[in-house]
Amino acid sequence: MAKFKISYFDIDGGRAEPIRLALSLGGIEFEDHRLSFAEFKEMRAGTPLNALPVFEIDGVAYTQSNAMCRYVGKLTGLYPSDPWQAFLCDEVMDIVEDAVLAFGRTMRLEGDELKSARKDLVDGMYTRCLQLLDKRLEAAGGQYFAGGHLTVADLKAYVWLKRLRSGEQDHVPVDLADRLAPALVRHMERVAAEPGVAAYYARRAK
Amino acid sequence: MAKFKISYFDIDGGRAEPIRLALSLGGIEFEDHRLSFAEFKEMRAGTPLNALPVFEIDGVAYTQSNAMCRYVGKLTGLYPSDPWQAFLCDEVMDIVEDAVLAFGRTMRLEGDELKSARKDLVDGMYTRCLQLLDKRLEAAGGQYFAGGHLTVADLKAYVWLKRLRSGEQDHVPVDLADRLAPALVRHMERVAAEPGVAAYYARRAK
Repeated sequence: MAKFKISYFDIDGGRAEPIRLALSLGGIEFEDHRLSFAEFKEMRAGTPLNALPVFEIDGVAYTQSNAMCRYVGKLTGLYPSDPWQAFLCDEVMDIVEDAVLAFGRTMRLEGDELKSARKDLVDGMYTRCLQLLDKRLEAAGGQYFAGGHLTVADLKAYVWLKRLRSGEQDHVPVDLADRLAPALVRHMERVAAEPGVAAYYARRAK
Repeated sequence: MAKFKISYFDIDGGRAEPIRLALSLGGIEFEDHRLSFAEFKEMRAGTPLNALPVFEIDGVAYTQSNAMCRYVGKLTGLYPSDPWQAFLCDEVMDIVEDAVLAFGRTMRLEGDELKSARKDLVDGMYTRCLQLLDKRLEAAGGQYFAGGHLTVADLKAYVWLKRLRSGEQDHVPVDLADRLAPALVRHMERVAAEPGVAAYYARRAK
């Protein structure tokens, strides 16, 4: 087995988290390299695209969290082998990425500009992504997004939804998902209760 | 076989083009629905994420061009079955997407603001993406990005590079790729000469 190292911020969320979770659920050891923002500033120019996460596999640095998530999903049984189910899994991962990117575009704003941009985000991209994910989940039977079992799409949506409902994003109503995507909220709670996920966070809390 | 319809702008490029090419190379019929910007404005609110391309499969509208590209790649033999080669293919598709997104963030600017943002784009994200793609191509043997054969990653990189070298992007030096990523330019020319790709554009030119 290859040697995995994930370099990312020291948060239990964001783009690295579904990969950390998938590796952990699959029992694959990895180096969980967590950086402060100051440490990232120092190493930034040395990363392939000036960004985190960076994935080192046998010492070579790779980019693109959804690509890595998909690869790890294949190694751990968390990715559908059927091409159509795999498409459904991939679409969900990229819908979440669209929402994360839209949030990113508001991150450096302040004051009234931030408030206005977050209102547009909430009324626009967040509403569309939540409603679309809810619809996709219902179409897939309401339990999992693809393949009839837990996949990296479920982990990706779970990590995003948890953040969205945390109250950490200024000017984003904490009950937005509850109002717009009730099936998705139940899904989030179900993924949190998956034995492998619960065990991972129990270890993290120690 | 499912019925495919792709709705996108009437350009031989952008996010729909690698999918049109892959379907065409695989001999899969599809409805090539091309919209003017005015037509898009009218239909926009009815799309799942306020954006094109939209993919209709048996009448259901889906989003996410890289997900669709990957799915079509699997149907047409243009996607690696080996998980690691598939990762390399996916990383390249998402690196190109990063470059396209970075360009998108400069699209509504004008005058000196546009000039300055494009300089940052050229010196920053474009340089990094070109150099990384060139490096990945060399690491894969210089011919194709993954699997030792033509994949959707090659089509995606080809479509982007063609646009980059077209002179259509203001304040982006037309020889940028030639200076920074010579292997990638040779790759673009090779993909253009693939019989299926050449035949597709010969039909389009009629």
